[in-house]
Amino acid sequence: MRNSKKAIILLSGGLDSATTLAIAKKLGFDCYALSFNYKQRHMSELNAAKNVAKKLKLTEHKIIEIDLTQIGGSALTDSKIDVPNSPTKGIPITYVPARNTMFLSYALAWAEVIGSSDIFIGVNAVDYSGYPDCRPEYIEAYEKLAALATKAGVEGVGFKIHAPLIKLSKSEIIKEGLALGVDFSQTVSCYQANDMGFACGLCDSCMFRKEGFDSAGVSDPTKYQ
Amino acid sequence: MRNSKKAIILLSGGLDSATTLAIAKKLGFDCYALSFNYKQRHMSELNAAKNVAKKLKLTEHKIIEIDLTQIGGSALTDSKIDVPNSPTKGIPITYVPARNTMFLSYALAWAEVIGSSDIFIGVNAVDYSGYPDCRPEYIEAYEKLAALATKAGVEGVGFKIHAPLIKLSKSEIIKEGLALGVDFSQTVSCYQANDMGFACGLCDSCMFRKEGFDSAGVSDPTKYQ
Repeated sequence: MRNSKKAIILLSGGLDSATTLAIAKKLGFDCYALSFNYKQRHMSELNAAKNVAKKLKLTEHKIIEIDLTQIGGSALTDSKIDVPNSPTKGIPITYVPARNTMFLSYALAWAEVIGSSDIFIGVNAVDYSGYPDCRPEYIEAYEKLAALATKAGVEGVGFKIHAPLIKLSKSEIIKEGLALGVDFSQTVSCYQANDMGFACGLCDSCMFRKEGFDSAGVSDPTKYQ
Repeated sequence: MRNSKKAIILLSGGLDSATTLAIAKKLGFDCYALSFNYKQRHMSELNAAKNVAKKLKLTEHKIIEIDLTQIGGSALTDSKIDVPNSPTKGIPITYVPARNTMFLSYALAWAEVIGSSDIFIGVNAVDYSGYPDCRPEYIEAYEKLAALATKAGVEGVGFKIHAPLIKLSKSEIIKEGLALGVDFSQTVSCYQANDMGFACGLCDSCMFRKEGFDSAGVSDPTKYQ
């Protein structure tokens, strides 16, 4: 029997996904977190994901290994492409082609197997780098696809893709996370964090995070290199 | 610059995907084949994929390793679930949750990286097991998603998901493949083929294949166990 209380939460180990997980917990979902070792440049985010998952006492935390260096095309999956240390025009080279589409597909598969109809993803379309797969229209299209793609969908059980942060500013996300007891010192957002999880303070992701703490009037717990 | 002549072809090693590849070649595409080692029960289909790719002299054949036993939920990805040896009611247990959604996501990522707008998939909604992710409405929804999911999509370059077999019967597919010079003796369709690629002759996939050769009036080159 399908249990409506189970939810899959995509957990990168960053600020947004940690807050998303806390929101799912608060909503009473039985949380199954899903992270990916995709040979990303900032592998230390995975340790962050483990620590966040441990603290929040989830039902399960699955880490899937996929080698996106086989596909490349991004500063995060091709070591020959540098992470920009200042803002660039348009969608930056840190964009990973179809990444959220891949991640959501695994989430969808796992949701179907455990009988869950709810998938949470911490995308944000306000203080972000313009990645196409973080926008509301993308999430809506994925929800439609999920219904058509699956046995559960054919049987009339739809899937809800929850994106609770999508319209929040970074400072609003930080305030929400703090209210829910998220320990942001555990999270890693930096695209080129070192093995210890220390941030560069220069990349897009660091800039959004820094500005978020500033504008929330909260002291920034990030460890910088 | 985007080169409209490149295409990604999902190649399982079965009869349908081999024919799809031959169709893409005939249409003049520069073919990049994509296969998956997902720890599937019928791993010998991967050798078939390699042989088919070799014979057709593709530009590239990439094999991506993903461990779908971590997700399970199907007779093809969970060794504790048997492949049915006779037809079952509804969508059979050989359905792999969200498999085509995952495979198309990798194809989409690779297409974007190499500057291709064309993805071929050998799904069929006539002589098939009722898998939801083989239907025209699914393919249409994926095409819409692809446009929203990617940088290329945002920049106005859409993606076409070609499913040239979707409305053909198995015997029509076989005739088309033969006309294009596909060597079906190289292909493996069986869900429980042995390491040598010998088929069981009993599973759904074997039944559709057998009936296809029968009804096409062509001798069946399949090696049975």
